[in-house]
Amino acid sequence: MLTIDRSSPLPLHHQLKQRLLEKIESGEWKPNDLIPSEQELQDQFGLSRTTVRQALSDLTHEGLLVRERGRGTFVTPPKMTHSPDAHKGLTEFMLDQGITPGWKVLERGFITADKETAVYLNLPPKSRVYRLRRLRLADEKPIGVHTAYLPETVAAQINEAALLEGGSLQYISHIPQMMTSRARRIIEAIPASEPDANLLQIAPGSPILQITRIVRSSSGEPVEYLQARYRGDRFKYQIGE
Amino acid sequence: MLTIDRSSPLPLHHQLKQRLLEKIESGEWKPNDLIPSEQELQDQFGLSRTTVRQALSDLTHEGLLVRERGRGTFVTPPKMTHSPDAHKGLTEFMLDQGITPGWKVLERGFITADKETAVYLNLPPKSRVYRLRRLRLADEKPIGVHTAYLPETVAAQINEAALLEGGSLQYISHIPQMMTSRARRIIEAIPASEPDANLLQIAPGSPILQITRIVRSSSGEPVEYLQARYRGDRFKYQIGE
Repeated sequence: MLTIDRSSPLPLHHQLKQRLLEKIESGEWKPNDLIPSEQELQDQFGLSRTTVRQALSDLTHEGLLVRERGRGTFVTPPKMTHSPDAHKGLTEFMLDQGITPGWKVLERGFITADKETAVYLNLPPKSRVYRLRRLRLADEKPIGVHTAYLPETVAAQINEAALLEGGSLQYISHIPQMMTSRARRIIEAIPASEPDANLLQIAPGSPILQITRIVRSSSGEPVEYLQARYRGDRFKYQIGE
Repeated sequence: MLTIDRSSPLPLHHQLKQRLLEKIESGEWKPNDLIPSEQELQDQFGLSRTTVRQALSDLTHEGLLVRERGRGTFVTPPKMTHSPDAHKGLTEFMLDQGITPGWKVLERGFITADKETAVYLNLPPKSRVYRLRRLRLADEKPIGVHTAYLPETVAAQINEAALLEGGSLQYISHIPQMMTSRARRIIEAIPASEPDANLLQIAPGSPILQITRIVRSSSGEPVEYLQARYRGDRFKYQIGE
């Protein structure tokens, strides 16, 4: 049933939204498909530009469609699932799905720890810590920004070759005390800041899933404090079972 | 250092933002404090309305300030922490913090399960299921919307008295098979839909932390499929340690 009923009490944009939803749910429009332009939808359903825009804007707002400037409107692909269980990390999930995982190093070097970082790493105030910022890629598109802080002693053992491959801890996973490491995670939904929005190619204010992680070695010492920010529309987190 | 340096290459709104941040970080402005009005900030710093608005808008966007229509701009209170470990549930967290927890029942009754609900509850398509929608309150303010779906057999055992008190499973926790229940959770950052935004008293599109939970009884049968949507600015989730 893909027609608009002008005698219905339902607003026209709402009816159009339902018709478009049916196309997505039935699989006629598949993830990543480019959908018809505003003009084509106006012609196809005999509706005004305002009505078409309202329906598209609602579906974009609800995360079912994605607009890419200058390219058009696409059906949102399913979110990637990350499970904190190391054997089902995001890298492995991507490989399972035929998505090429990757990293891009944005910035690295020693800085003076701010208050929060010193507390999380259990170091004296203003200690020298190593900061590593990496963009996480899926099929070469950015999906997350990782900012990791390491104590100097840990930074000295970084495996440089692993910075661009594997899971988020690959570059320090060879350190013996990491074999039985454990982590505390805090998960939040936050609005994208302007710089993060630019890196992740989304609009500022878009929902970001932020994961703050503190990894401790087998002896209980903090070895990494990570702030990972993922595109809310591309990423979800699974716990349990 | 609370002055604005007009000879600095830093934009004025950026300098003002830094000054306001210092007030928050130093504790001069405390969580939930009403901050000076736009006019007062213009006078205090000798800045234009546009500059003041830009700084306030940046800080609101970054979640450090909250604007409440007709009331003014406030320092954002710290987020509530929920830990899925039953002994550190959100209700207990609120009680520890001197916050009064509560629920408001929005809607309840039997419906026909949609495809997703039937799959999650391991029921035949179009089964009759019980839907319970509740608003979760902190000091009588809404912080989350829970929509729970229960199989008929479980719904028959609901403890009516517990719908308005205790944790999110309190109303079925007396069922013997729930004693050793386990749960799978999926956590996402999504934009607030118009109806949820109204319920939660936030702007549509604001980040929501959504938790999808499937609880299974000790015998492995799904007993609850829950979709919980929390204000991203009031709530965070902690896992581990």
